Amino acid sequence: MSRFFSGKFSGLEAYVPGEQPKDQKYIKLNTNESPFPPSPKVLNALTRDELELLNLYPDPTVFSLTSVIADTFDLLPCDVAVGNGSDEILAFIFNAFCDKERGIAFPDVTYGFYSVFAEMFSVKYSRVPLREDLSICVDDYKDITDNVIIANPNAQTGMYLELSEIERLVSQNTERLVIIDEAYIDFGGESAASLIPKYDNLIVVRTFSKSRNLAGARLGFSLSCRELANDINTMKFSFNPYSINRVSLICGVQAMRDTAYMQKCMEQIIANREFLTEKLISMGFEVKPSRANFVLAQSGRISGRALYEELKKRGILVRYLGDKRIENYVRITVGTREQMIALVFAIVKILECNK
Amino acid sequence: MSRFFSGKFSGLEAYVPGEQPKDQKYIKLNTNESPFPPSPKVLNALTRDELELLNLYPDPTVFSLTSVIADTFDLLPCDVAVGNGSDEILAFIFNAFCDKERGIAFPDVTYGFYSVFAEMFSVKYSRVPLREDLSICVDDYKDITDNVIIANPNAQTGMYLELSEIERLVSQNTERLVIIDEAYIDFGGESAASLIPKYDNLIVVRTFSKSRNLAGARLGFSLSCRELANDINTMKFSFNPYSINRVSLICGVQAMRDTAYMQKCMEQIIANREFLTEKLISMGFEVKPSRANFVLAQSGRISGRALYEELKKRGILVRYLGDKRIENYVRITVGTREQMIALVFAIVKILECNK
Repeated sequence: MSRFFSGKFSGLEAYVPGEQPKDQKYIKLNTNESPFPPSPKVLNALTRDELELLNLYPDPTVFSLTSVIADTFDLLPCDVAVGNGSDEILAFIFNAFCDKERGIAFPDVTYGFYSVFAEMFSVKYSRVPLREDLSICVDDYKDITDNVIIANPNAQTGMYLELSEIERLVSQNTERLVIIDEAYIDFGGESAASLIPKYDNLIVVRTFSKSRNLAGARLGFSLSCRELANDINTMKFSFNPYSINRVSLICGVQAMRDTAYMQKCMEQIIANREFLTEKLISMGFEVKPSRANFVLAQSGRISGRALYEELKKRGILVRYLGDKRIENYVRITVGTREQMIALVFAIVKILECNK
Repeated sequence: MSRFFSGKFSGLEAYVPGEQPKDQKYIKLNTNESPFPPSPKVLNALTRDELELLNLYPDPTVFSLTSVIADTFDLLPCDVAVGNGSDEILAFIFNAFCDKERGIAFPDVTYGFYSVFAEMFSVKYSRVPLREDLSICVDDYKDITDNVIIANPNAQTGMYLELSEIERLVSQNTERLVIIDEAYIDFGGESAASLIPKYDNLIVVRTFSKSRNLAGARLGFSLSCRELANDINTMKFSFNPYSINRVSLICGVQAMRDTAYMQKCMEQIIANREFLTEKLISMGFEVKPSRANFVLAQSGRISGRALYEELKKRGILVRYLGDKRIENYVRITVGTREQMIALVFAIVKILECNK
């Protein structure tokens, strides 16, 4: 820390992304990326002619992208705000709508960045314990007057709340904001975007990183009533108006349009998730019921940390999160069938050595 | 504004980027972009194989880029922090090192975003008047204990402070931070990067948007002692660790390496700047001595606003800033020789009509 660092950040601990070691080639099942390349339509749109225009600023209103997103969700472009990944959108939301008085509540096991955003922007926050089985109980939020953010399916667990439960959460108290982070919704859930015309206290956050195969392009967006979208864009235009570069803008438009390719990828991920879940259960694992592109699993025979370490030795990266409530679990990204088979074989070997 | 917008932003007015009208094709001389495409080495590096990897997250440490930047400036990778455009880096700097107690001072005519950042992060700020001729007087900063940010060459005016003057500013008071925003330094100035080994209270901010022909890729960086760089990265990792996408990362590495291409582009811009300056003077304009890729000029025969409007009617966009001290000026980006000739002809016509 330099001698000039502001005292307001004395308690700040930065987010730690999933490791990306460069010492060897790994089967990477630790950051919930898609194992499939972007849509061919994305790749074909990145022509030399387009790339030659990189000397010019992108359109800061990103209208080409907000309009195709709006069409997809049956909303208007003014209901959409686009960010450099959903992390940027989430940061804008924490900063715009929360402060020391109006705080934010979220489950005690969820995306680890929520508490970092809260620290970063001096926002009061509280953690609401999940049930014993790690599911979210909507009734636990009934008396909370602070804003609420829920990942659905939930980060780390993959567990899903039905749309009716989400609506119950939103309508419990319309004087607070409810943010639904739907990074993983396309892997088998129903989006809350359909509720937006009905509730002005709802923001749905989405990303291109998972189901749209574009983690490398950094694109996320929010859907909400236009007043909330406008406030999020005020944050963007007071921070970094051009945060979406030209190439990512093109990628986003094409990826959003190519629903057929996304569906094909989703079907494979879902089939591989069921395959992996079944194999893990047959090896004695407890596996949380996942609607995401990852599973959270624990073995009775080897600790989460040891399994992570043994897999890494064998060239496979999974995520060991270490949070108290899930300290014996590993989180495994669902990859290709070949990757899942390699993983299962490796686990069989590890458990044999561990007898 | 929504009913949920935090009261802390009641005074916030977002930055207004230069207009990008889509009603017709314009000669765009209003946002200080390079008129030349990125280096062919940049374009050649964006292969189909690389683009197919867009499903994977970029390296959040952006080590490939920090190392080539460090090499270029004879520093170490840990002295470099990279952001999504220099706007993101500037935002991190305002937030990390300034607050309600330790404020920031800057000239009364400069990059308009500085005051927006200050409002956004609740930072105390003050404006130090330029001299009558719009130049910066370093002695005016002698007694300022707040941090100081100076664009060199200065935004809007293009006027330049010699390196010895910058060193005087940095060494006046080593208990405050001095930030030198060198967006335009390659167009004829000498960088303060050489002072970094000597001063731990100096941050130099650079961009790929101007001299590296990559405004569309969104890349900027800071150079400083490693403690300051580390603090800036703490901001990044608490806000958006993956803000640099894969494509821009590749672009940045190649653009930074291709010094020959940059030099060739710089020479043309400088020659065109001298050409334009001479023509404007011959038409009776007062032109500020510019070391940037734009000139600030006023005519005694037509107001700044009217000139901007007349040029727009003729398909040429220049920037009318409207700030009180330069309200009769227009800011004109230096483009290709053809663009400069078209501009001069248009001005001749406008002045004839205005007799």
